Amino acid sequence: MNPQHIKPALLQFLSADEILEDASAWLTDQRSRYTGTADAVVQPKSVAAVRQLMRFCFENRIAVTPQGGNTGLCGAAVPEGGVLLNLSKLNRIRSINLADNAITVDAGAVLQTVQEGAAEAGRLFPLSLASEGSCQIGGNIACNAGGLNVLRYGTMRDLVLGLEVVLPNGELVSHLHPLHKNTTGYDLRHLFIGSEGTLGVITGATLKLFALPKTVETVWVGVDSIERAVELLTLVQGGFAERLCSFELVSRFALALSSDFSRIGQPVDAPWHILLELADSMESGGLGEELAEFLLAHGFDNAVAAQSETERQALWTLRENISASQRNLGASIKHDIAVPIENVAGFVADCETALQTAFSGINIVVFGHLGDGSLHYNTFLPGVLDNGVYEYEDAVNAVVYENVLACNGTVAAEHGIGIVKKQWLPSVRSAAEIALMRAVKAELDPRGIMNPGKLLP
Amino acid sequence: MNPQHIKPALLQFLSADEILEDASAWLTDQRSRYTGTADAVVQPKSVAAVRQLMRFCFENRIAVTPQGGNTGLCGAAVPEGGVLLNLSKLNRIRSINLADNAITVDAGAVLQTVQEGAAEAGRLFPLSLASEGSCQIGGNIACNAGGLNVLRYGTMRDLVLGLEVVLPNGELVSHLHPLHKNTTGYDLRHLFIGSEGTLGVITGATLKLFALPKTVETVWVGVDSIERAVELLTLVQGGFAERLCSFELVSRFALALSSDFSRIGQPVDAPWHILLELADSMESGGLGEELAEFLLAHGFDNAVAAQSETERQALWTLRENISASQRNLGASIKHDIAVPIENVAGFVADCETALQTAFSGINIVVFGHLGDGSLHYNTFLPGVLDNGVYEYEDAVNAVVYENVLACNGTVAAEHGIGIVKKQWLPSVRSAAEIALMRAVKAELDPRGIMNPGKLLP
Repeated sequence: MNPQHIKPALLQFLSADEILEDASAWLTDQRSRYTGTADAVVQPKSVAAVRQLMRFCFENRIAVTPQGGNTGLCGAAVPEGGVLLNLSKLNRIRSINLADNAITVDAGAVLQTVQEGAAEAGRLFPLSLASEGSCQIGGNIACNAGGLNVLRYGTMRDLVLGLEVVLPNGELVSHLHPLHKNTTGYDLRHLFIGSEGTLGVITGATLKLFALPKTVETVWVGVDSIERAVELLTLVQGGFAERLCSFELVSRFALALSSDFSRIGQPVDAPWHILLELADSMESGGLGEELAEFLLAHGFDNAVAAQSETERQALWTLRENISASQRNLGASIKHDIAVPIENVAGFVADCETALQTAFSGINIVVFGHLGDGSLHYNTFLPGVLDNGVYEYEDAVNAVVYENVLACNGTVAAEHGIGIVKKQWLPSVRSAAEIALMRAVKAELDPRGIMNPGKLLP
Repeated sequence: MNPQHIKPALLQFLSADEILEDASAWLTDQRSRYTGTADAVVQPKSVAAVRQLMRFCFENRIAVTPQGGNTGLCGAAVPEGGVLLNLSKLNRIRSINLADNAITVDAGAVLQTVQEGAAEAGRLFPLSLASEGSCQIGGNIACNAGGLNVLRYGTMRDLVLGLEVVLPNGELVSHLHPLHKNTTGYDLRHLFIGSEGTLGVITGATLKLFALPKTVETVWVGVDSIERAVELLTLVQGGFAERLCSFELVSRFALALSSDFSRIGQPVDAPWHILLELADSMESGGLGEELAEFLLAHGFDNAVAAQSETERQALWTLRENISASQRNLGASIKHDIAVPIENVAGFVADCETALQTAFSGINIVVFGHLGDGSLHYNTFLPGVLDNGVYEYEDAVNAVVYENVLACNGTVAAEHGIGIVKKQWLPSVRSAAEIALMRAVKAELDPRGIMNPGKLLP
């Protein structure tokens, strides 16, 4: 079909306000690294409209890129022509079911809206990440989002009970149920989770809910080494178990950046820092004291506990502002990696040595979710400005990923593959696995219209 | 290859004690419903031997049926000729990693051995089911086993971090890592979990560990209706949250059977019974009192709390002996179903009415895991003996499953599909989904040698 004819043809089944006039805001990714093109940008208001759209695009072999809040960090929602299918107007909470502890939502519901909807019903939806005010559930599912509470509640994959998906040919596959046990053949739900829009359009989901926390204790602990931080993690997991929600690692350098940027004093001085939070769904008056005694008894005496919600927010602001504060260092080459927790200390030491050898004077900002082994590992080349860093990207990545793989880690922990990491997929998946992925793709999307150019190398 | 030549040929790469002389014990399933045939029954002692076996069978187009402890309830491990590959001799705990809270084991490790290995390291492996003394981890994974603690810890699917699999052509796919965040293309681990030996041979797994419980409180509660039981569940999930491990439903009839069989008095008299257990990984002296007050405050006054481990075991024996006690009623047609918890009461009422209309005088034993919506729903036809019941199986199933599906439920909750339910798969999966399953199967097992005749209709 002639690209100019697409938009008029869409009016056969979409209303005028489901087709955007000025769509430029949706064509560039959050990092402003990629700008795509689209012959039409649509925001259908119903699953029925999504089905009609897919049937039309299937028949006419038009590429479709699904997009949620456009907060992805790997370029997976940047269109390469065809139709950009933005889910923002499919954004209702459909139902909450307390007996089954489950909530059913449209894919375009904003994460924070779902958190708030759950809270109004007296329940917790635990996924929490920096972009929660604008990212959408469908995107969270398509990327298997992680964030701050994975240690306790798992990634998005662990929170999905049922999915509603429109296949590339417009067919609906709907399993919006709250079943906790359901073993009926190969699990296809988990194929769509993390598929980054390449297999079909997620339009709805049934998600797990949990009890709201009634007691929260937050402590900032300074330690001499990552080894010592891992000791603390192991001890706290033994002693406080599922009450442990967050266990974040921050380097001295990262803390200094954030402290300057945030105008909040550093809680303690140390080479490495841990922000840990316990939460109990029951009133638990003694939990804070118990934690303080526990830390002292194990020699973690360089610690500050939040005495109020204001103090707690200040500690979290220090953690959350690291990303923003880095901008003062210039453009960076970022990595979203994970290694087994027992290997984190070795990885950080070895990778720094290797990078300094190859790129003398390189600045490295290390922080992340030590409790689940995933790190944000960002590198800054002194004097290299803006997009100039991307000339060095392949060379820096080669060093970082070589060290990650030597530690039995992964090149993509919680941001996905998208465009950015396609070429690295064969480093973590065998030829047989990639062949299977292609077979799955070919079966579901025989005309190759779903988000072409993403994920598969 | 002439079947008589298979056994001698295996000696090229298996030792004599890896090939069983008398294999009859492995050819019949636990329920003695199916007896299969095999040209050879092997118990390889290494992953390398499994790979050589698969290469040989691939080249010679010999069927292979993987088998663990042979405790499956749907016939999935009964061979239909070819090689029966029993994993019992691949049974080591390979390593325990406390920093990552993970244990790596051979597929043939017995579940109880893994539980005990974790406990020795001060951790809990939470999967728990009736056959835990003989079922194996590989079978638990292949069937996505459920059991008693799913409410808190999930099914086997939720407990697997990494898998090691030998593909039908002998190729090894190994991801034995404890990564909690790893989003690198379509998730193939979850395809193998629940695949019932039809895609490849699971040879090892890395599994999640948890803190050991330090406080356990167990209560038996009598209620007037299932609706009231669901109210209790919702209240306890709000008030005690993740401390709730088990929430089991038992009918008056099922309790009477088990009480007679167990020679243990009934704790309370009521139409419906709940066995609920809270566990806390911290010392929590007041938990039992808090629970007792909570029950009273919400009007659940027909309750007995275990005051000692002996009393706790007696309550659990009443629950666990239901299956055994049923044998006094004769042979039964069993169902392993799940429906949304909010629909359980309606399902039980409607299904009983429909069954009594179609099969006057039918006895129904209802019990199961109300906390996750899965029920064991067993039916006995008065005067029909032994395998004579199977003449009525299709007719009884038609009534039961019609009611399950009307409630948005599933015909297979935690036992899998195997041979028993193949014909029912299309009732819960669409044609597009089954086509995708076939495409996955064709890609991984192009010669159709893996566990032929199981799972796919």
